[in-house]
Amino acid sequence: MGDGEVILLDFWCSMFGMRARVALAEKGIKYQYREEDLGNKSPLLTQMNPVHKKIPVLIHNGRPVCESLIILHYIDEVWSHTSPLLPSHPYHRSQARFWASYIDDKLSEYGHKLNTSKGEEQEAAKKDFIDCMKVLEGELGEKPYYGGESFGFLDVALITFYPWFLAYEKSGNFSMECVCPKLIAWAKRCMQRESVSKSLADPYKIYEFVQQIRNTKFGTDE
Amino acid sequence: MGDGEVILLDFWCSMFGMRARVALAEKGIKYQYREEDLGNKSPLLTQMNPVHKKIPVLIHNGRPVCESLIILHYIDEVWSHTSPLLPSHPYHRSQARFWASYIDDKLSEYGHKLNTSKGEEQEAAKKDFIDCMKVLEGELGEKPYYGGESFGFLDVALITFYPWFLAYEKSGNFSMECVCPKLIAWAKRCMQRESVSKSLADPYKIYEFVQQIRNTKFGTDE
Repeated sequence: MGDGEVILLDFWCSMFGMRARVALAEKGIKYQYREEDLGNKSPLLTQMNPVHKKIPVLIHNGRPVCESLIILHYIDEVWSHTSPLLPSHPYHRSQARFWASYIDDKLSEYGHKLNTSKGEEQEAAKKDFIDCMKVLEGELGEKPYYGGESFGFLDVALITFYPWFLAYEKSGNFSMECVCPKLIAWAKRCMQRESVSKSLADPYKIYEFVQQIRNTKFGTDE
Repeated sequence: MGDGEVILLDFWCSMFGMRARVALAEKGIKYQYREEDLGNKSPLLTQMNPVHKKIPVLIHNGRPVCESLIILHYIDEVWSHTSPLLPSHPYHRSQARFWASYIDDKLSEYGHKLNTSKGEEQEAAKKDFIDCMKVLEGELGEKPYYGGESFGFLDVALITFYPWFLAYEKSGNFSMECVCPKLIAWAKRCMQRESVSKSLADPYKIYEFVQQIRNTKFGTDE
């Protein structure tokens, strides 16, 4: 079932796209990476994801799978013989899905606001973002990974925010290490995996990218 | 794995709660239904879903599962021996998940706006809602169910909007039958299943409920 051509339509710093990259690397799946110009999307992207026209899209033997968490499920189900991502017990699976959904609904929104706002709006976003990170740190507890003893679905879903931490810290003028030391220790543990370190974008490039967005929005003299 | 006590914390007309009810009925699972007063949430609800404090929550042997689509996955995985909801092939599973997510992101939002706005805002919501329904009708195609020959995950995810159609039609002054005849035929087909007809709320009561919300928001002389 896992044979055939695999193409990933992606954008270099997308935390959603990086999830697919980490999962593909964990499973040892060879694929073609195709960088999208989000200002001028390719005909292939609009054809493969006509509803949302968003990356990432995983194209397996010509058939598209969209939405990063759905892509993770797909990868885990098709290439099920190696490195399982979702826990085996339905209850633990439900909890991994719940927290991944929480990351998409909350962390993603607050992080975006933190990076693209100023003044009171940014202060509110910073507070929400830090609260959210603390909740996620609490959920990790004393476990080495969210997947317990092994790196799994929720680890993949969250670790792709790690290269964005520098930009969040600079935008909000705070230290993630001070706010969530256990979460940082977890992230460093994940980074020891080649599947992670080779799949994530450079934090400094992401920081520059965020600066460009801020400069365009607020001018260069902020 | 499927033994033990099952409790559903719910609210009578929630399309999300009704999903859990339909799935439990499809599987023939006995459970305690507990109606929540959303203006005065029970300590059990805030304890079982401390993050969102929202219904539905499925409590199985004391452990909570939150978020309706995650609950559907859980029910399907724990009670896997009968009436499978998700398709067996990973690609078809990914498509069912994609459209269920589309319903939650788009249809749910547009339907809510249609029921709770006036004037230009409502006209825009009506257009978005109808466009969305047409996309979903297109996805059904000529199949009897979204699950193909059998009633499945995506059928459960969408059919719980059916008892809301009357309120949407009255709010927007249009006929769903004229706009999406094939979708209405599908809904009637689903309603022939006892698991559906016995789990869904009364459309007239939902219409009255929406009228009360509109009266509270806009006054009774709108």
